Amino acid sequence: MINVSVLGYGTVGSGVVEILRENADLIAKRAGEPIQVRSVLDLRDFPGDPVQDIIVHDFEQVRSDEKIDIVVETMGGVHPAYEFVKAALESGKSVCTSNKALVAEYGPELLQTAQEKNVNFLFEASVGGGIPIIRPLKISLAPDEILEISGILNGTTNYILTEMTQNGSDFDSVLKDAQEKGYAEKDPTADVEGYDACRKIAILTSLAYGKQLDFEEIYTEGITKITDRDIAYAKKLGAKVKIFGSSKKTGDRVSAMVAPKLIFPSHPLYSVDGVFNAILVKGNMVGDVMFYGQGAGKLATASAVVSDIIDEAKHVNVNMKTLWDAEKLSLTPLDEVVSKFFVRIKGGKEAAEKAFGAITPVDAGYPDEFAFVTEAVTEGAFAEAAQSLEVINRIRIDG
Amino acid sequence: MINVSVLGYGTVGSGVVEILRENADLIAKRAGEPIQVRSVLDLRDFPGDPVQDIIVHDFEQVRSDEKIDIVVETMGGVHPAYEFVKAALESGKSVCTSNKALVAEYGPELLQTAQEKNVNFLFEASVGGGIPIIRPLKISLAPDEILEISGILNGTTNYILTEMTQNGSDFDSVLKDAQEKGYAEKDPTADVEGYDACRKIAILTSLAYGKQLDFEEIYTEGITKITDRDIAYAKKLGAKVKIFGSSKKTGDRVSAMVAPKLIFPSHPLYSVDGVFNAILVKGNMVGDVMFYGQGAGKLATASAVVSDIIDEAKHVNVNMKTLWDAEKLSLTPLDEVVSKFFVRIKGGKEAAEKAFGAITPVDAGYPDEFAFVTEAVTEGAFAEAAQSLEVINRIRIDG
Repeated sequence: MINVSVLGYGTVGSGVVEILRENADLIAKRAGEPIQVRSVLDLRDFPGDPVQDIIVHDFEQVRSDEKIDIVVETMGGVHPAYEFVKAALESGKSVCTSNKALVAEYGPELLQTAQEKNVNFLFEASVGGGIPIIRPLKISLAPDEILEISGILNGTTNYILTEMTQNGSDFDSVLKDAQEKGYAEKDPTADVEGYDACRKIAILTSLAYGKQLDFEEIYTEGITKITDRDIAYAKKLGAKVKIFGSSKKTGDRVSAMVAPKLIFPSHPLYSVDGVFNAILVKGNMVGDVMFYGQGAGKLATASAVVSDIIDEAKHVNVNMKTLWDAEKLSLTPLDEVVSKFFVRIKGGKEAAEKAFGAITPVDAGYPDEFAFVTEAVTEGAFAEAAQSLEVINRIRIDG
Repeated sequence: MINVSVLGYGTVGSGVVEILRENADLIAKRAGEPIQVRSVLDLRDFPGDPVQDIIVHDFEQVRSDEKIDIVVETMGGVHPAYEFVKAALESGKSVCTSNKALVAEYGPELLQTAQEKNVNFLFEASVGGGIPIIRPLKISLAPDEILEISGILNGTTNYILTEMTQNGSDFDSVLKDAQEKGYAEKDPTADVEGYDACRKIAILTSLAYGKQLDFEEIYTEGITKITDRDIAYAKKLGAKVKIFGSSKKTGDRVSAMVAPKLIFPSHPLYSVDGVFNAILVKGNMVGDVMFYGQGAGKLATASAVVSDIIDEAKHVNVNMKTLWDAEKLSLTPLDEVVSKFFVRIKGGKEAAEKAFGAITPVDAGYPDEFAFVTEAVTEGAFAEAAQSLEVINRIRIDG
């Protein structure tokens, strides 16, 4: 019998309890022994809920309970999640978490503690919700040098951009609709500004190269400036606007970015619409592999957490080493990263050509502006050339 | 230092040696120690090739070499691959293989031997080439009851159907072209008749339910009867023809089949074209997850093999239990499996309605035949109703 304590009985935490109950028999078979929820830490009580009898309000009751083998952290936020997880590992319990903010910030330290204590720290659910990506990246792609990761890592923004594309609606009204449907938070900042995707690509890139990429160092641009006109131009180009968290290795250097991009039908992620997420990984041997599924949602995310619980149940007293050192991964300076850009300006072709040289005009029927696509150019050169222009918006092009 | 012996220096075997050499440093880091190819078993010699000095011609030299930790079987064929793998496991070596025929037939027995000897038997490359699917199915989806697996599991047939769809060519000329390009074997039977996909869906289904599904029990239909007219009708319907290996759980029963199917743009695998493979898995908690990549090819397949080598290097003397018992998985009888059918007959609407009741006619401009789509019907009822008709072809509809 493996005993689990769940920290935080919110959406994901209650999903974990539900899956461990609903699929108890097959989980016991696959884990090698039954898995039981021994306690649930939450500030609240849940009268009438089956967990009410095992609710505890003080983390010390979890930490000091020697019968608990695995602690499941589904509280969210960095503090006190960090303190609780650290203490759990130090007391010899394995931990799994769905908390991307915690993992992005303290991943290497918590992995180190787990290794020292010969327990495990897993976080499959921290990126891509129910999509298996962390474990495949660590194990299945271990033979490969990772050349590129490109992910549609946030369901809320993908839903908003999909709706804008399919229905021609503007950002504000789609956001409002998404909030009403529960696809967007009341405060949507972390999603629409790309902060959520930023932490996720920081985790994936750190794992790919075995060093710590601080999320603060990743250039991050959200979708709040994408208008219905941008979408109309994208259609004219035969493209879609999607927001990517991506990183790329060129020679010995790695670049990373969160930004909306124009992609074309030949792009493997072109048809990933709505709340779905997908992650494309390019290895130097395996080529392109892609993982697709529900990037969020109670049971999808909880399923990923439970896969970690089962894996930890099968690895009692065996640390599954994860290569992610505290040593910093240094990024290619943003100025040196190369893209083509789609650009809209107040002004005409002459001004655009004077700034960028060869350009390809794009006409979507807006006489009050001029739009064009540049050749491949560094971010630094783009910024400099754009200074002479009155830029309405610009979107990078992938491919 | 982990010592490996590679059995069979063909396409995949030489790819394994190449990856272990090219990515040696990062593989050593990820495996925890260097991995060295100590011998290569092949009937041939390879003068001038770096492996020539370590070529052996007698398996006994591999079996009795106590320094060899891991045996990599990339010979193909069931015999003598089975005898070699069994003997390697019995002599306390872990084994990994890309050999779907071997795994489909002897999977449970070889897993059992590996468990008894406290070594490992892995076969990531046996399905989906470079696509991580075996490990995700075993570990990442362990919390889930698997409700459905649908796979485009064979690159050759997907390439042929894609070419027929995109260029309107007929089967024979596309096959010839595929053979010239090296996408199809000289004897293409195993691919075009669905035998390859059959073994792969047998492996995936056995793993999903933990019991042995004999591939001989799976109804298997290839693509040799698909004509340019079928493709034209599919386009008329807004659909594509793709060949799937699939299995589905309904209540307590599992059905499985390899057959061409019509799918529509809303299907997650609709845009998987050319030589690419993809596998959709539906879990009762996680929902739909999809895995996509190169289903074959030297380095992609070899990368999957090397991921197994690394995993085995990290699990010396620790058996990673795989649930796949010798107990038979009994299938729903084919007669009871339900589909809609697209049907082409010599004859007219009246005859079709007399046989099937409500139908939806499809007109693609061929006056010498009548085509229609049935309501959902069992295979048994379909066969009976079709007896009164002169059927030119029929294709099942997915969705």
